[in-house]
Amino acid sequence: MRRFGQVLGIATENIPEYTRLHAAVWPSVLAMITACHIRNYTIFVKDNLLFAYFEYHGDDFAADMAKMAADPQTQAWWAINNPLQSPLPTRAAGEWWANMREIFHTD
Amino acid sequence: MRRFGQVLGIATENIPEYTRLHAAVWPSVLAMITACHIRNYTIFVKDNLLFAYFEYHGDDFAADMAKMAADPQTQAWWAINNPLQSPLPTRAAGEWWANMREIFHTD
Repeated sequence: MRRFGQVLGIATENIPEYTRLHAAVWPSVLAMITACHIRNYTIFVKDNLLFAYFEYHGDDFAADMAKMAADPQTQAWWAINNPLQSPLPTRAAGEWWANMREIFHTD
Repeated sequence: MRRFGQVLGIATENIPEYTRLHAAVWPSVLAMITACHIRNYTIFVKDNLLFAYFEYHGDDFAADMAKMAADPQTQAWWAINNPLQSPLPTRAAGEWWANMREIFHTD
């Protein structure tokens, strides 16, 4: 299992709508998350920052992310949510949510 | 169980030392974290942000945090680490790490 921490910006005025959408994520989107071997996935907000934590239980993260990105329901969900988000200018090439580096873990 | 997401700032020049310290956290500090009912605790870094995720399995978080804060070994650890950190001006009264609001979770 590989742990992921990811960060993304969000404008203050978009937080209420983003929160409302995430209180009722489409079942088809949740099913694709599960199909892509992601577990224990949580998103937090503070000020103008979104932080996501999840655990990846598959063996080919790039392939699972490509599978997710090819899903029409997920694409429709992203088309609604992405305009509410402000990705970090410092994110790596190809990233939307910027992956963070794990520096500590204890079970 | 209650999930926590927390954010804290860190100056670029302090990240190498903070990373080094967290690659070998004192056993006494880890034991107190466990004694305070914290599990699956991970810290991530990106740019000048630290994000922490953990799961609290106790029934009195304030009491467990007071217990941790009263531990001399934990105090000594914090005395070394806190000067490397830059808490958010927007943190709540009494916070060092700023607690974030959970807006989404799926198992």
